[in-house]
Amino acid sequence: MHTFISVLDILGVIVFATSGALVASRKEMDLIGFGLMASLTGVGGGTLRDVLLDRPVFWIADPKAIWICLGIALLVFFTAHKVQRRYPLLLWADALGIALYGVMGAELARLSGAGPLVAIVMGMMTATFGGLLRDVICGETPLVLRKEVYATCAALAAATHVICSTAGVPFEISASLGFAAGFILRALGIAKGLSLPGYKPRPGREY
Amino acid sequence: MHTFISVLDILGVIVFATSGALVASRKEMDLIGFGLMASLTGVGGGTLRDVLLDRPVFWIADPKAIWICLGIALLVFFTAHKVQRRYPLLLWADALGIALYGVMGAELARLSGAGPLVAIVMGMMTATFGGLLRDVICGETPLVLRKEVYATCAALAAATHVICSTAGVPFEISASLGFAAGFILRALGIAKGLSLPGYKPRPGREY
Amino acid sequence: MHTFISVLDILGVIVFATSGALVASRKEMDLIGFGLMASLTGVGGGTLRDVLLDRPVFWIADPKAIWICLGIALLVFFTAHKVQRRYPLLLWADALGIALYGVMGAELARLSGAGPLVAIVMGMMTATFGGLLRDVICGETPLVLRKEVYATCAALAAATHVICSTAGVPFEISASLGFAAGFILRALGIAKGLSLPGYKPRPGREY
Repeated sequence: MHTFISVLDILGVIVFATSGALVASRKEMDLIGFGLMASLTGVGGGTLRDVLLDRPVFWIADPKAIWICLGIALLVFFTAHKVQRRYPLLLWADALGIALYGVMGAELARLSGAGPLVAIVMGMMTATFGGLLRDVICGETPLVLRKEVYATCAALAAATHVICSTAGVPFEISASLGFAAGFILRALGIAKGLSLPGYKPRPGREY
Repeated sequence: MHTFISVLDILGVIVFATSGALVASRKEMDLIGFGLMASLTGVGGGTLRDVLLDRPVFWIADPKAIWICLGIALLVFFTAHKVQRRYPLLLWADALGIALYGVMGAELARLSGAGPLVAIVMGMMTATFGGLLRDVICGETPLVLRKEVYATCAALAAATHVICSTAGVPFEISASLGFAAGFILRALGIAKGLSLPGYKPRPGREY
Repeated sequence: MHTFISVLDILGVIVFATSGALVASRKEMDLIGFGLMASLTGVGGGTLRDVLLDRPVFWIADPKAIWICLGIALLVFFTAHKVQRRYPLLLWADALGIALYGVMGAELARLSGAGPLVAIVMGMMTATFGGLLRDVICGETPLVLRKEVYATCAALAAATHVICSTAGVPFEISASLGFAAGFILRALGIAKGLSLPGYKPRPGREY
């Protein structure tokens, strides 16, 4: 099980670092800028999670995650021009990331003794934080402000995992179900524009 | 006294969560977006305070604050259209919040052994942080950039409480005086446009 | 050596606080706004560093840094109009800051037992964080998004210091070399527009 957690964590770093490097390419940064954005986005959510749970920050304890972020920055810097349309790729990398971190944030909160609600909120916050950093720093519209389902997917991933775990489902299955639920919902958001009913002010009302 | 601290803390969460949910309504988010913005704004300042003071994060230790944020998100999602003008309501909720968190941030810093200056700065930072998060994520102009008194009100609330406490005034009275001073000043800012003299570049100078 | 670290730390606070107060002057804030921006920018990077390394936050342990930030806010509020062009001054203050914090962040990470890579990344992150806070809150374009070398300078300062230290060079010399390398590179960026080759999308490609 410990191995499975590590694998999920590394996958989350990879996909978020990729999304960070892709934003750096949209902003035409230099190679070090790619490294900074890949690192901030790749480890941002997990860093917030570790600081809030008062655990040692994972990439300080083991620099593997940073090597991965820098490697991805290098790779994207030299290959991104081969990708016809980079923004969709960024969205899909981010989608994998929020589903993975939604589950991981919830699981690590549970392991720290948090109850189900705190675990779900921790999953939602840490899954969306790296991308928020990325978008706010680079002046992109944060994905949480777009119409399609976004925070909902992180919450669904976290909630599915927490509910299954509480019901006694083994970790590997529970985490996989949570990941699948969050990712499929987000995929419907990206591909089909699926959205939940948003708040609608009544016409004629000021605000 | 412990009860009184808890009551102030919960009041602060309530009013900041309300302001977060109101911003979510201005951005026409879905229900989960309301939950995320209410939670980030409601617990943001207190979370920063706890991390800086190396205390356990309050909403992880006791999830009550999160239930409150989610309840407020639900309430605002279904009732905000009844409010004729939501932006002023947001400003007033935020005003209550900065006065409350100005006092609370200062008090908890004092309890951790910080001197008066650090306590006042901690009050000012934690009172303005949740609202900054809310405004930066949602692309609203941060209130700290507007002309009317804002950070000043948090600083006044914190300073009043710290000075009275140091002078031996009992906590309930001292905290109430600090809250009243900060809130009244901010009320004058919102209602009358009260502002301190801002920095004015000399005409004809470049910058 | 301990004294030398303290001196560098205070110098870093001074120059970043100056850059924060100068941004406050560009936004025509009031005196308390100057104090808030000087404090956030002055202690922001060091605060992130201390939270990540799980050290006591330096300005809570010793409020000297806050007194300095507030003193600089006062000074800049009353004298900035004498400066013909404030934005270049802000850039130069920031340049000193990133070179100083690049070295300090790396050194404190090393003292906490981190390896060279983590030390360099910590230097780069903490050197750029205060300025990012300043620019994001005030709606300025973050310097990391501009074409001239920026994050690279922090990384160079940190890497130079880490490499020299590992090679056994005494701290004072190693830190000075790191500072000089980072600052000179940034100076070339500000004065001559020096930039690394940025990512260039191929013409005719969408993104």
